[in-house]
Amino acid sequence: MSNSKILIRNGKFLVPGTPLSVLNGCMIIENDLITYIGEEEPFLEEELQVIDGSRLLFMPGLVNTHGHAAMSLLRGYGDDRTLQVWMQEKMWPMEGKFTPDDIYWGSSLSILEMMKGGTTTFLDMYDKMDRVAEITEQSGMRGVLTRGVIGLCPPEVQDVKLADAVRFARDWHGKADGRITTMLSPHSPYTCPPELFVKFVQAAHDLDLPLHTHMSETKREVEQNVEEYGVRPVEHLERLGMFTRPSLVAHGVHLNDEEIGILARHHVGVSHNPGSNLKLASGIARVIDLLNAGVTVSLGTDSAASNNNLDLFEEMRLAALIHKGFSGDPTAIPAALAMRMATEYGAKSLFLDGVGQLAPGMKADFIAIDIDQPHLLPHTDLLSHAVYSASAKDVLHVWVNGKQIVKNGECLTLDEEAIRRKAQETFEGLLKR
Amino acid sequence: MSNSKILIRNGKFLVPGTPLSVLNGCMIIENDLITYIGEEEPFLEEELQVIDGSRLLFMPGLVNTHGHAAMSLLRGYGDDRTLQVWMQEKMWPMEGKFTPDDIYWGSSLSILEMMKGGTTTFLDMYDKMDRVAEITEQSGMRGVLTRGVIGLCPPEVQDVKLADAVRFARDWHGKADGRITTMLSPHSPYTCPPELFVKFVQAAHDLDLPLHTHMSETKREVEQNVEEYGVRPVEHLERLGMFTRPSLVAHGVHLNDEEIGILARHHVGVSHNPGSNLKLASGIARVIDLLNAGVTVSLGTDSAASNNNLDLFEEMRLAALIHKGFSGDPTAIPAALAMRMATEYGAKSLFLDGVGQLAPGMKADFIAIDIDQPHLLPHTDLLSHAVYSASAKDVLHVWVNGKQIVKNGECLTLDEEAIRRKAQETFEGLLKR
Repeated sequence: MSNSKILIRNGKFLVPGTPLSVLNGCMIIENDLITYIGEEEPFLEEELQVIDGSRLLFMPGLVNTHGHAAMSLLRGYGDDRTLQVWMQEKMWPMEGKFTPDDIYWGSSLSILEMMKGGTTTFLDMYDKMDRVAEITEQSGMRGVLTRGVIGLCPPEVQDVKLADAVRFARDWHGKADGRITTMLSPHSPYTCPPELFVKFVQAAHDLDLPLHTHMSETKREVEQNVEEYGVRPVEHLERLGMFTRPSLVAHGVHLNDEEIGILARHHVGVSHNPGSNLKLASGIARVIDLLNAGVTVSLGTDSAASNNNLDLFEEMRLAALIHKGFSGDPTAIPAALAMRMATEYGAKSLFLDGVGQLAPGMKADFIAIDIDQPHLLPHTDLLSHAVYSASAKDVLHVWVNGKQIVKNGECLTLDEEAIRRKAQETFEGLLKR
Repeated sequence: MSNSKILIRNGKFLVPGTPLSVLNGCMIIENDLITYIGEEEPFLEEELQVIDGSRLLFMPGLVNTHGHAAMSLLRGYGDDRTLQVWMQEKMWPMEGKFTPDDIYWGSSLSILEMMKGGTTTFLDMYDKMDRVAEITEQSGMRGVLTRGVIGLCPPEVQDVKLADAVRFARDWHGKADGRITTMLSPHSPYTCPPELFVKFVQAAHDLDLPLHTHMSETKREVEQNVEEYGVRPVEHLERLGMFTRPSLVAHGVHLNDEEIGILARHHVGVSHNPGSNLKLASGIARVIDLLNAGVTVSLGTDSAASNNNLDLFEEMRLAALIHKGFSGDPTAIPAALAMRMATEYGAKSLFLDGVGQLAPGMKADFIAIDIDQPHLLPHTDLLSHAVYSASAKDVLHVWVNGKQIVKNGECLTLDEEAIRRKAQETFEGLLKR
């Protein structure tokens, strides 16, 4: 990596402190790191790139801790249906037709949407992950990639899938200047038999990688777990040894107090997906209780097929709004907490050190939003505006690992026009096949 | 008005039918009316303006049925507080300082935000409404304006306020080529004594105008109504004769079955404000039950101080999502219904004939969104995309009454730069006073 140094002057920066505050001043980036943020501009002898930060709010890039990028091909394909009809009649028949190329273009569409919208890190759980890694590397984004394994198949097929997941995780972990890391993902307790889970736990120990799975998204799957295994999903996974590894579970909607205690004790992170949970009517996660118990709760969009966009500003706002509405407490999930869930807690959930905050020594993953717009005026409280008023489309610039990947709303690393055209063609092709 | 004729070619149009569908074709606008929509382009001899509609979805302009535009000055000023603290320590002291000029600039900021975001009609209930009418006339938007009267003052002061409300309603009704209409608004049952309500009802009869009020937003105000008057708010207002006039109530969060029946019987509209209700933790309105009972439910943002933006796409999406999540039924409030609440039902709630749909004979109030963007691809179902994926910032063009007021995202009628600057200065001035 060639040596680079950037000074951003006259900006407003969302920095840690009580618990988040806005600092007027400047920020210096050296290579992939933030090396200075302060009100005073230090004297600088070296050559460096200077950026005028006026009329911009700089904030940590957003971290999306649960998704399936390729499924953006099915955005809007079968809304407003019951979960069973949606999956069995709409999603699965189409996903069954996905080729590696389809996955490449669907993932490209999602990555383009996410990066333009201010997401700098995303978790992706899907199949044919080499193609997802390929476009992630090219995009400049930070990706936590994991091959999701559905074990509803004979044991020997399960083993082939597990081997593929392990091979992918080993091949790509730490690649793309460290921007790509990997995890291992049995899809869920209701799609993977206990023996397969146990093998995944062993593989995670062998590779020293974290685990990710879907857990307790719907009431029905919890009941089914009790019917089949005699215990609820959290205890089930605890018994299978999953929580002996660093773990992140997606959804965690239906949890009792005891389960929340188990998650807290094992430092298991929960990826809260409010948009998807509402749209599929899965239920309302006990986010306030989880946070009070000390669980790290982050935010995920889930796929665009059940959301239907990948705008993390919207998930932040949903998290801040719906838990106020449900609890009857307007002080629940204040703006700073929602922002931390989407940034700092997101990075922690994905086991990424040095990501998720604007501070010296942190990775230079940050975004700039245009605050000189009617819906972001007057400038009463810019943190509030970022959470309660802004959207993906207010993002002007994006940097990951110190490199700018979006400038004035345009993607610098990918061919947007080609991706838009191919995504449409791919969907039309799927309909015909 | 000079004679004008516009042809939009190669567009996609969201038109009535089963209950909404997308038509590929063209639309003709003559003066203030839509005169043709169809797949075939009719032969046209006259001179006319031709617009290329490719890559655009044309849809009815959105209708915001409850708000207080001037309060955008307090956007982000005091979030995440209990309702009492928010009102008594934050809103009221600042609002008490509002001059007519402040109201003019605050309203201008909101109107600018709304029109750029695809809202073509808005209801505004506030004070110093002549200044709001002035900027509404200039903006080219359709406004339903009403002076809200708080009756927590001596009877003679109440009468002065009522007289002002009546004078304003008479002066402005039907003005600005008919774009401005008026209503009469006692603020709420808990801020207006019964005698004042009765006078408002009489005035509404005299002027032949509809009535608007806040009703049953919080549990506490319903309890208070029972304590003071022995009945819940709906029965209270029914007894005071309010529903002998065409009426629209804002919020309607806390309603029992009997009250829903009364509202349905009297054809009282309910402006559902999901963002504000969630943020203030007021509760979750029984929207599914209201709709099932035949009540016209429309959407409002409330003010930017409790929302914190005026993006009606977001309110559509919240309405479609939260009632799925709360009811556990993923088929509740499907996309077409959410869209109708934000358009057709909005116009009906505001007693505007010929507004809210794209069809021949309707007023030419419509918007165009840019559908060639990553988050709106692939084109599986454009109605779904408009409800579940789009936002205010996807709006490129806006027409009201046949005249274009926003083009390529830029406001053609107001000085945006001046409004942004003045809004910020006004807020800073309020802090110093």
